[in-house]
Amino acid sequence: MSAATVEAKKTLRDGAFGHATALSCRECGHQIELGPHYACPECFGPLEIAYDFPEVTKAEIEAGPRNIWRYKALLPVPSDIEQSPNMEPGFTRLLKANNLGRELGIDNLWVKDDSTNPTNSFKDRVVACALSAARELDAKVFACPSTGNLANAVAAAGARAGIKTVVFIPSNLEQPKQVNSAIYTENLIAVEGNYDDVNKLASEIAGEEDGWAFVNVNVRPYYAEGSKTLGYEIAEQLGWRLPDQIVIPVASGSQLTKVDKAFQELIKLGLVEDKPYRVFGAQAEGCSPVSAAFKAGVDAIRPVKPDTIAKSLAIGNPADGIYVLDVCNRTGGAVEDVTDDQVRDAIVLLARTEGVFTETAGGTTVGVLKKLVETGQLDTSLETVVINTGHGLKTLDAISDRVGARATIAPSYDAFVAAKII
Amino acid sequence: MSAATVEAKKTLRDGAFGHATALSCRECGHQIELGPHYACPECFGPLEIAYDFPEVTKAEIEAGPRNIWRYKALLPVPSDIEQSPNMEPGFTRLLKANNLGRELGIDNLWVKDDSTNPTNSFKDRVVACALSAARELDAKVFACPSTGNLANAVAAAGARAGIKTVVFIPSNLEQPKQVNSAIYTENLIAVEGNYDDVNKLASEIAGEEDGWAFVNVNVRPYYAEGSKTLGYEIAEQLGWRLPDQIVIPVASGSQLTKVDKAFQELIKLGLVEDKPYRVFGAQAEGCSPVSAAFKAGVDAIRPVKPDTIAKSLAIGNPADGIYVLDVCNRTGGAVEDVTDDQVRDAIVLLARTEGVFTETAGGTTVGVLKKLVETGQLDTSLETVVINTGHGLKTLDAISDRVGARATIAPSYDAFVAAKII
Repeated sequence: MSAATVEAKKTLRDGAFGHATALSCRECGHQIELGPHYACPECFGPLEIAYDFPEVTKAEIEAGPRNIWRYKALLPVPSDIEQSPNMEPGFTRLLKANNLGRELGIDNLWVKDDSTNPTNSFKDRVVACALSAARELDAKVFACPSTGNLANAVAAAGARAGIKTVVFIPSNLEQPKQVNSAIYTENLIAVEGNYDDVNKLASEIAGEEDGWAFVNVNVRPYYAEGSKTLGYEIAEQLGWRLPDQIVIPVASGSQLTKVDKAFQELIKLGLVEDKPYRVFGAQAEGCSPVSAAFKAGVDAIRPVKPDTIAKSLAIGNPADGIYVLDVCNRTGGAVEDVTDDQVRDAIVLLARTEGVFTETAGGTTVGVLKKLVETGQLDTSLETVVINTGHGLKTLDAISDRVGARATIAPSYDAFVAAKII
Repeated sequence: MSAATVEAKKTLRDGAFGHATALSCRECGHQIELGPHYACPECFGPLEIAYDFPEVTKAEIEAGPRNIWRYKALLPVPSDIEQSPNMEPGFTRLLKANNLGRELGIDNLWVKDDSTNPTNSFKDRVVACALSAARELDAKVFACPSTGNLANAVAAAGARAGIKTVVFIPSNLEQPKQVNSAIYTENLIAVEGNYDDVNKLASEIAGEEDGWAFVNVNVRPYYAEGSKTLGYEIAEQLGWRLPDQIVIPVASGSQLTKVDKAFQELIKLGLVEDKPYRVFGAQAEGCSPVSAAFKAGVDAIRPVKPDTIAKSLAIGNPADGIYVLDVCNRTGGAVEDVTDDQVRDAIVLLARTEGVFTETAGGTTVGVLKKLVETGQLDTSLETVVINTGHGLKTLDAISDRVGARATIAPSYDAFVAAKII
């Protein structure tokens, strides 16, 4: 299927993928040449990027642009990546969260706030790397199946890059969410089916059509590397230091494993001190196959049928679930889950303590952070980072019956006084 | 009324307002001491901040934080402002807009994208300065009347700062917009009336109650200075150079006059070369009192009753309208207006060319940019900046019948092929 998807150019230009050297199978270690491939030809295991990194200094990175391309030497992108029109995502705020920390009893807490990315989620990071791959592979169409954040990011990045985009969504998606993507692309295609049907169709198209780059299908190895930049930024923003503990949402599980990969790379490159850190995964109870496996102490994921308000985390059969278990077990972390009500509570808690309005995925992560404290799984004396992956404006429905006006008064000072507002 | 609003502390701490020296009347030039005042005791003219700036170098600014506090020496804030919890707004992207430029026939076009601020509009800048003033004046309540962006910014900043917030809105405001503010504050107060009624009530409360800082009423002089940071950032991001032309939306008119003030300060401080620049104001036809005055060549604003989808610009009697006329006339610019349909077209145009989803205010500004080209008022060979003040997710309704799915297909490859999507 790989060869048919994005036809490999006869000759890739030198350095098309930066210091990447090959695609390497995460299961059997078999390596193949860089191209539009995502499954190992030997064992069908997932492929990821292998590199031969040069020496990279803090000074070089700090002199770079204020977006993910400051780490371009560590990504599968060419050295002139900034010259190609892109969304310039990343280098989002790392906020000291003293109010939330006080509320939860954590001494030293930070929120990595990816809701301020160009299309308001971390997906801008991964899509930027996928776009670079699509360009280098001479793809004609930049596409994805999605119900939300990914669709926004692909449609916007494609518009700015001047590449044709096609975004596939389930036809029953709420109209406001359709608008969020249709604003950027004239090719929003509604598919009569659920997300799994849309995803399956995308894989079929990727297998049959030449020149289509589906970000999360046939250029997935490049795409996934974008999540490493979350890890790089957290370390740099802490003053080139790894946090002691980090809490990360788990959908496919890719983001969590890539943040860990980023930390490991920084250690190997000598950019941060080698020290222990614990990685925690966050799921919603209504879609918690990885949490269930972690708690059961097994190393296989049993797929589930998702039923949660955290729709951007609702992947019932997460591709990287087993690797999440590896990371959390290796680092002494855990995977935990919370109910939809706990997700809603956590959204309000984060907004009212830190002024950050997160989507349901972020509510899940903050909710799990709280639960990890309450269950004694998190050491409250250690420096802790929690990732907010997207903006609450995208999942307003989830909390619209939770918050609202406290009082309604007549437009007069007397009415104000009578209402005893404060 | 001023003295009753936020009670002046017996002793303000040294440097509470940085290098600000006084409040100066824009009409008669009378100066009074710094405090919670906004109207001249002599002539009732609007007060603005006067400074005695120290020498400020580019290097000092560049070594500062990646937010508006890099310019703290030029703002009415203390030198330790970063130590107080705040939203850390600003230093948003200045995007080279080659696609939009090509579409409009402008050679060298940039978009200053303030939709990526913490609460997704430029209001985070002004509110951050108002918050500092409220803190230094020992205010007990941080408040505003608003229907949208300002309410979001005040509620979020207050939450993070740990100061009590009260946000007043018209009771008929759509429920999603109520949620956008209520998420951050438990004190969202619905007022039975229109925005003018709410605004009037806010002024009454500010006049009667001690300890209330209404950002856009009694600490307005401090608040308004925050808009200068848009001008500083544009100049710095262009490589310490002023643009030749800039297009700015006009609601009260404050932002436009403050960007001009910022450019003038940078010239006086020797941080940029003194060169001509032209400032253009953008209004929606349904609320275009400043544009009407400009076109009529008069220097008085005739108030109007707003009727436009650009609700964040819908101020029928803009306080700084006459100063907008001054700036646009002095610099050889203009004030122009566009219809609601042109606003909608411009929102789609910006999204599809640059991947930036703007609210109706930004649609107004980009629409006016287009009209300025078509009417020959803008020189298309000169470097031009257009400001995007807020995010389209906040005004989805305005374009929800404009964009949507292009096709609906069955979930099969055959159906995909039959639909001839590309």
